[in-house]
Amino acid sequence: VSRASFEELQRRLQEVSDLGKTMSLLAWDQQVMMPRGGGPLRAEQLATVGRIAHEKFTSAEVGRLLDELHDFGEQHEYDSFEASLIRVGSRDWDKARRVPAELRADIARASALANQVWIDARENNDFASFLPVLRTNLDLRKRYIECFDVGDEPYDIVLDDFERDMKTAEVRRLFDYLKEHQAPLVKEVAAHADELEQASGEFPIALQRQFELEVARAFGFDDQCWRLDPTVHPFASGTGTTDIRLTTRYFPHNLDGLFATMHEFGHGLYERQVDPALERSPLARGVSLGMHESQSRMWENLVGRSLAFWRHFFPRLQQVFPGPLAGHDADRWYREVNAVQPSLIRVEADEATYNLHIILRFELEQAMLADEFPLEQLPEEWNRRIWEYLGIEVPDDTRGVLQDVHWSGGSIGYFPTYALGNLISAQIWEKVTADLPSLYDEFEQGEFGSLRDWLREHLHRHGRKFTPSETLERVVGTTQIDPEPYVRYLREKLADIYGIAATAA
Amino acid sequence: VSRASFEELQRRLQEVSDLGKTMSLLAWDQQVMMPRGGGPLRAEQLATVGRIAHEKFTSAEVGRLLDELHDFGEQHEYDSFEASLIRVGSRDWDKARRVPAELRADIARASALANQVWIDARENNDFASFLPVLRTNLDLRKRYIECFDVGDEPYDIVLDDFERDMKTAEVRRLFDYLKEHQAPLVKEVAAHADELEQASGEFPIALQRQFELEVARAFGFDDQCWRLDPTVHPFASGTGTTDIRLTTRYFPHNLDGLFATMHEFGHGLYERQVDPALERSPLARGVSLGMHESQSRMWENLVGRSLAFWRHFFPRLQQVFPGPLAGHDADRWYREVNAVQPSLIRVEADEATYNLHIILRFELEQAMLADEFPLEQLPEEWNRRIWEYLGIEVPDDTRGVLQDVHWSGGSIGYFPTYALGNLISAQIWEKVTADLPSLYDEFEQGEFGSLRDWLREHLHRHGRKFTPSETLERVVGTTQIDPEPYVRYLREKLADIYGIAATAA
Repeated sequence: VSRASFEELQRRLQEVSDLGKTMSLLAWDQQVMMPRGGGPLRAEQLATVGRIAHEKFTSAEVGRLLDELHDFGEQHEYDSFEASLIRVGSRDWDKARRVPAELRADIARASALANQVWIDARENNDFASFLPVLRTNLDLRKRYIECFDVGDEPYDIVLDDFERDMKTAEVRRLFDYLKEHQAPLVKEVAAHADELEQASGEFPIALQRQFELEVARAFGFDDQCWRLDPTVHPFASGTGTTDIRLTTRYFPHNLDGLFATMHEFGHGLYERQVDPALERSPLARGVSLGMHESQSRMWENLVGRSLAFWRHFFPRLQQVFPGPLAGHDADRWYREVNAVQPSLIRVEADEATYNLHIILRFELEQAMLADEFPLEQLPEEWNRRIWEYLGIEVPDDTRGVLQDVHWSGGSIGYFPTYALGNLISAQIWEKVTADLPSLYDEFEQGEFGSLRDWLREHLHRHGRKFTPSETLERVVGTTQIDPEPYVRYLREKLADIYGIAATAA
Repeated sequence: VSRASFEELQRRLQEVSDLGKTMSLLAWDQQVMMPRGGGPLRAEQLATVGRIAHEKFTSAEVGRLLDELHDFGEQHEYDSFEASLIRVGSRDWDKARRVPAELRADIARASALANQVWIDARENNDFASFLPVLRTNLDLRKRYIECFDVGDEPYDIVLDDFERDMKTAEVRRLFDYLKEHQAPLVKEVAAHADELEQASGEFPIALQRQFELEVARAFGFDDQCWRLDPTVHPFASGTGTTDIRLTTRYFPHNLDGLFATMHEFGHGLYERQVDPALERSPLARGVSLGMHESQSRMWENLVGRSLAFWRHFFPRLQQVFPGPLAGHDADRWYREVNAVQPSLIRVEADEATYNLHIILRFELEQAMLADEFPLEQLPEEWNRRIWEYLGIEVPDDTRGVLQDVHWSGGSIGYFPTYALGNLISAQIWEKVTADLPSLYDEFEQGEFGSLRDWLREHLHRHGRKFTPSETLERVVGTTQIDPEPYVRYLREKLADIYGIAATAA
């Protein structure tokens, strides 16, 4: 009888999963394909499907099945599909049932409506027009937090949605370490900076697209299960492990779009390599945003900004863009794509300054939730911190507070996971390079199969079976996010490029 | 209290409408954007959303509300939103509740799975690989018919889904008229055919796309609420009156794609011009497929194959494709695009032979439902009838029984509506041209606004408020589909082009 109950549970969770993937498509289409006239209706469609998915999942019947199946789950191996589905399903259910379906629908609707407002505000440098939807999103997020028993800090609640079990205090501790050990690197580099001239000229977008597809295909992208499209703010999405959708954007005078594509490839590969047996269940996706970002930042930076990668791809790059790259070589290009320079846009920031952009957002989000300043002042608060952390002035809100899509989507609590991802990526990288000593040689040959397979075997295939900590332990042998490998990696790279000391003073 | 019940009904129907439009997006995406690896999952997503939409609509609660609101509806004007929603909702509910949700889900799943099989079979001229999914679709359609009390003929049931209240016997009567009065035209023309040489050469696809967008924009297409994308088999879709999606296809050596685009524009405009007050209700779409096809065939043929249209657009066409069109002029081009020539592909057939393609399918569909021959023999049955009706041999199944998407989607009963649409389009055209005597002068100026407005006012805005007959009566003053205007129109046009007698002997 337990087997029948398990199958009934599975059937119900499949339905919820189908609705979730349908929402992914509604959102992807909105940001990539939909004529803007469809916006208000799309918001209703997202609200309706979101409400139904929430009602189906939080139903008493699902709760009863999970309860009834508790012992059945315990009787199975911890990492079996059965035990994992019941364990993760119960945890999700306990959390989701605290949130009324109407609030879920309101959040989905507001987020969809805000998207176009944000696009227009960003394009027109018009924070005032974005303010009302930001306020709505913030209020909804506060109502969401009120659904839970707040322990130490309200921010813990939103953080947990993206990084299960992670606490604000722990993030603060990690970020304090970065302030102490990473921020000084930027100053050290500034003292050693030679005058590295950046490649300049036209990078025609059609050729960028062609080149980045060559890179993506070498990484593992294929037309059978992947798409790549332009959008306003790059993201990765899809409707299942066999339908992965990357998005990117292009600039006519630089190759930032290529790095965005490699970043999104990392997200896409994680979803693509989840064990197919987990499909149509809540286990069929990455375990957390931090772990997800570890994958995107890994392919963007540890692979895509490595010397070995460019030893292979630079000759081809030069062939595609002979004008801007005349007189360059792989070594010089490697230095260029790793140049450290405080800058305004997070997604285009170098590795040394990137985490500082995150720390700023982490602090502002907590301040917004605590109403520490009137929301009208957000641009000033933003600009002040950019000056404080990066020493540069923000010329307009388009390149300041309006640059990121997240707050338009109500995703407060998401940003820290980028920095956590950076830290995790270096922890994993130390393990990968120890296991695969010829990895860089393979990159120089344009081969990325060993890395892809290693990641599938040690991380991707597990999907959401385990907690983030358990998953990290399976990959690197420790349950804790450790900031040291990342700072170590960064210092060694910058020592190589800028000649700063390879170990901290 | 009735007002509150009405609002509750409206809310529930909005939810069902949102789910329906979500299914439209899932299907559009599958045929236009999705990597093929997503196919099996997409089938599950369509099945799940389809089942939920069906369950929500056929719920006892909706039935109770409709019942309770019967008098409330009668108290309102017949053409009010309230009366129409209750009247149409009740009729839909009575019909839908006879069909189990699981059968609905099975149909949605089978249709989605069959799509890729059909694409591959068509590409590889491999009917055998299509046979199993065709059999499944046919069996599902028979199970569907069994949900109803079959009156005169089983085909009445499937026909009613696309053309409410239409009977197979009535279609047969209309088609017999066409056999008697339209088929001879083809023979008369053959006797008068001069050797009109068709334009030949390269029509680069990028330029085709540019030209057809110019035409579509002149018709009323804009980027705010419309999209146009390539696909395997053209169709029109969308997620609401403000998000209209046309699809088309291109051939490198002819402009058939342009006519497909004008055809789909006609469908799109109908949906675009439905009264926005009907949005998110079952009234917010075209009243029937026959009426829909009257719109697509009107823009494709009565507009897009008219001399006035080409007097405006031909100089531009020649500018875009100077090579193939050297030495042509508008009058000669008008004759070319109206050339009568029995041919294999329905969507590319001229107006004189088009309905014969439909009659063949109408007869085959009835034969399939009645198991009149083993399904393996379908290609032979197809080819035999093409010979009989059109006097040509079918060289392969790709250009024969595999050419259309409909049977892969399980849409049996759909085809007759194309011919009904042709007939209705001529009925409407006689009314339009009487009301707007300067219509062709406007076409010659590249202006289509009066036609668009006339159609909105007399037809489009009503959406699905009335029955097809009631709607027809509002547009042309009679409830009956009349084949005479179409045959009259055709004979006059062919008299002009081929010099056959302008009235039948």
